[in-house]
Amino acid sequence: MAKEKKFVEAITSMDEDFAQWYTDVVKKAELIEYSSVKGCMIIRPNGYAIWENIQNELDKRFKATGVENVYMPMFIPESLLQKEKDHVEGFAPEVAWVTHGGMEPLQERMCVRPTSETLFCDFYKDIIQSYRDLPKLYNQWCSVVRWEKETRPFLRSREFLWQEGHTIHATAEEAEERTRQMLNLYADFCEDFLAIPVIRGKKTEKEKFAGAESTYTIEALMHDGKALQSGTSHNFGDGFAKAFGIQYTDKDNKLQYAYQTSWGMTTRLIGAVIMVHGDSSGLVLPPRLAPVQVMIVPVRQQQEGVLEKADELADKLSDYRVRIDKTDKSPGWKFSEQEVKGIPLRVELGPKDIEANQAVIVRRDTREKITVSLDEIDVKIGEVLETMQKEMLERARKHRDEHTTVALNYDEFKDAVENKQGFIKAMWCGDKACEDKVKEETTATSRCMPFEQEQLSDKCVCCGRTAKTMVYWGKAY
Amino acid sequence: MAKEKKFVEAITSMDEDFAQWYTDVVKKAELIEYSSVKGCMIIRPNGYAIWENIQNELDKRFKATGVENVYMPMFIPESLLQKEKDHVEGFAPEVAWVTHGGMEPLQERMCVRPTSETLFCDFYKDIIQSYRDLPKLYNQWCSVVRWEKETRPFLRSREFLWQEGHTIHATAEEAEERTRQMLNLYADFCEDFLAIPVIRGKKTEKEKFAGAESTYTIEALMHDGKALQSGTSHNFGDGFAKAFGIQYTDKDNKLQYAYQTSWGMTTRLIGAVIMVHGDSSGLVLPPRLAPVQVMIVPVRQQQEGVLEKADELADKLSDYRVRIDKTDKSPGWKFSEQEVKGIPLRVELGPKDIEANQAVIVRRDTREKITVSLDEIDVKIGEVLETMQKEMLERARKHRDEHTTVALNYDEFKDAVENKQGFIKAMWCGDKACEDKVKEETTATSRCMPFEQEQLSDKCVCCGRTAKTMVYWGKAY
Repeated sequence: MAKEKKFVEAITSMDEDFAQWYTDVVKKAELIEYSSVKGCMIIRPNGYAIWENIQNELDKRFKATGVENVYMPMFIPESLLQKEKDHVEGFAPEVAWVTHGGMEPLQERMCVRPTSETLFCDFYKDIIQSYRDLPKLYNQWCSVVRWEKETRPFLRSREFLWQEGHTIHATAEEAEERTRQMLNLYADFCEDFLAIPVIRGKKTEKEKFAGAESTYTIEALMHDGKALQSGTSHNFGDGFAKAFGIQYTDKDNKLQYAYQTSWGMTTRLIGAVIMVHGDSSGLVLPPRLAPVQVMIVPVRQQQEGVLEKADELADKLSDYRVRIDKTDKSPGWKFSEQEVKGIPLRVELGPKDIEANQAVIVRRDTREKITVSLDEIDVKIGEVLETMQKEMLERARKHRDEHTTVALNYDEFKDAVENKQGFIKAMWCGDKACEDKVKEETTATSRCMPFEQEQLSDKCVCCGRTAKTMVYWGKAY
Repeated sequence: MAKEKKFVEAITSMDEDFAQWYTDVVKKAELIEYSSVKGCMIIRPNGYAIWENIQNELDKRFKATGVENVYMPMFIPESLLQKEKDHVEGFAPEVAWVTHGGMEPLQERMCVRPTSETLFCDFYKDIIQSYRDLPKLYNQWCSVVRWEKETRPFLRSREFLWQEGHTIHATAEEAEERTRQMLNLYADFCEDFLAIPVIRGKKTEKEKFAGAESTYTIEALMHDGKALQSGTSHNFGDGFAKAFGIQYTDKDNKLQYAYQTSWGMTTRLIGAVIMVHGDSSGLVLPPRLAPVQVMIVPVRQQQEGVLEKADELADKLSDYRVRIDKTDKSPGWKFSEQEVKGIPLRVELGPKDIEANQAVIVRRDTREKITVSLDEIDVKIGEVLETMQKEMLERARKHRDEHTTVALNYDEFKDAVENKQGFIKAMWCGDKACEDKVKEETTATSRCMPFEQEQLSDKCVCCGRTAKTMVYWGKAY
């Protein structure tokens, strides 16, 4: 009983304390549990099943573009990490160091990979000799470690799961094309599968990845108006190839440096799903992502024939990911559980429904109740799931658009940061000094220079000099 | 050209030098590459695709028994590792220690998980209160680290990929049932999917897992007559529960300790596939496991219509995992590549075949050539793949049976170890002294006490006292 009470405790209101609401949802939906290692989290079955669906869908999309999976060691010798100057400066301050193997101190310490550019370069150096060996389109699914000071489940943890793609090409053009292709793949995945609309764009010099020539990003807006960087794709040019000596002989038998990219998405996406779609009752999962799409809740299940009919219904719905809750909890209790876990549809089925040859479908997002005949429920469920997927994306896009403000001068900009939640669109001169100033004075950072540019004015929002580009700004996770 | 020459260099004969043959196959089939971290390997696309198929099939079988996936942190604080006495003694000498996070020394050092019993116990302690919370049937796919001195690709590396299942139950009986269930699942998987016959049995006290009450194992015989432990399943009783304080209230409201199991399979299985099925031309993959099942090799592909017909054929064979080799290499070269990589079937298709409305199927294992009409090739390919899968298992079983010797006394035993390759079946008194003596004097170890017992004699093969049980002995990887 103590446990049950704990379960029904109200989730903190998101308007009151969004951070606490987030933590409550993560815990009550049983997505994660804290571990004895500070900043590392245990991903529980409900959370991991979401990650598995993300993996399966992304992996399928990667492979359709020719990507192959590999596995690289989790350790990087210190000397290898140091080969590319910008890269080591970006990562060395936040890696975990292994100094002993068994009872012996190591001759050279190794870090646990924070990302694997250096390992891939060291590998490519050995396996690439000729233009015939190019391109290589490799990816790996693994965990990485970054010794962060402040941590939050899914959003920032010392160890997290991700995929990291690393490709290598004969020409700069091919590398650029792949960098953009993967960014667009990420964006489409977010919109189609997670029902999260994203802004596609390029990071400024200040915000780009350590060692990259350019970094592309997709930025999503959370319910509280903060931005979340949701996936990045980097073009390295031939910088790493030069640092690691990755050369190939071209068709004219000349030695050339190769061009590289990398791109990654992480368990952070689960945080995005929570913060874009969640509501006061907990998680709301878009149907395509949801590990369980339909929960059948039998009502008066002790009455003869109810559970049998529920089984029959589950069979009829076997095209979907369907479960029956046959536990001895009350229907109300089961409803709460289904809601907090974000299962898209609930189907209520009791003796009266059975008598009338019908069932009641309840949508998790709108709570709309739909009474349907058992004869056509399989078709109807498919329709409702599709509608829900589509409407969740539309709702998120509407929220994003309503929380995007145009600022034409610095006063408007500061006012927007202080009084409005969300993205701010404003022009920028391209000078890092302005970017630094905006960050210091307002805490807003440049999120990206969107591919879809608009000419809002011809003056930089900060210094008033000639503007070069429109930037999305915002407070970010 | 330098590269091409290297590729066609003969693979070392397995009769001459089995270890070198193994290394040659692993390298030439492009399964792995060595990395700059000693003892850690890079799993290349050909190797990783095999692991993905193993994962998918095992994962499906696990889930059918109610198992759910989770993810635990990769780090274990030293104090947590030390909670169970036998366990820490077994693993502490071979773990990698993290001592610094970023620029700071850690307050307590952590090891990279060599296995995760302690993490799961620490988790179960928090989430299990009542009998209603039991059982939990959790599994994770991850990499683990053991700082081995001698390493070999797939068979023994400092980091390897595996799955580790960890279940917790209300009763000792349930835990024992799950331990055996998973062992049998492993054995069936090896036989059905990898075409590797295994001996199912129990480890002796000496050979059991650190901290387990009993360890079950499946043992396979490699082509060179050495045994490979291919999967283990451990029953922990309530030992870990007592060390970690994992208690639940039963239906009578009394506090009880819970009972646990764990079970694992690793990338070592890929080593088993190589050493059971491989031949002088390289890898031979059983059809169910093979990432590519059919390679279509166009002959005289520059002639009009050949590549078009090959495409048509690939479409017709889309129920299988099929590829066409359209590179500008010679057909002979393509044949060698298909062979070294172990692709089960090759389909040769040239202008004359097309004229005759036929193609030639070549089996990788027997090199049998089968000419079939293009009209019925899709059905025929399915039949040949099934036959090949079945015959590969039969051949491996025959090899194993022919390399299993019965020893009734110590002279016969020593003779068998010295002069015959393979398993030795012999009776044992159950005394560790005899097991130690056998190992020291012959290098053979007890592989398992098989579930299928035979009464070969009534005397221990070593000391001559009353025998308790029949044991499989052998030299092992």
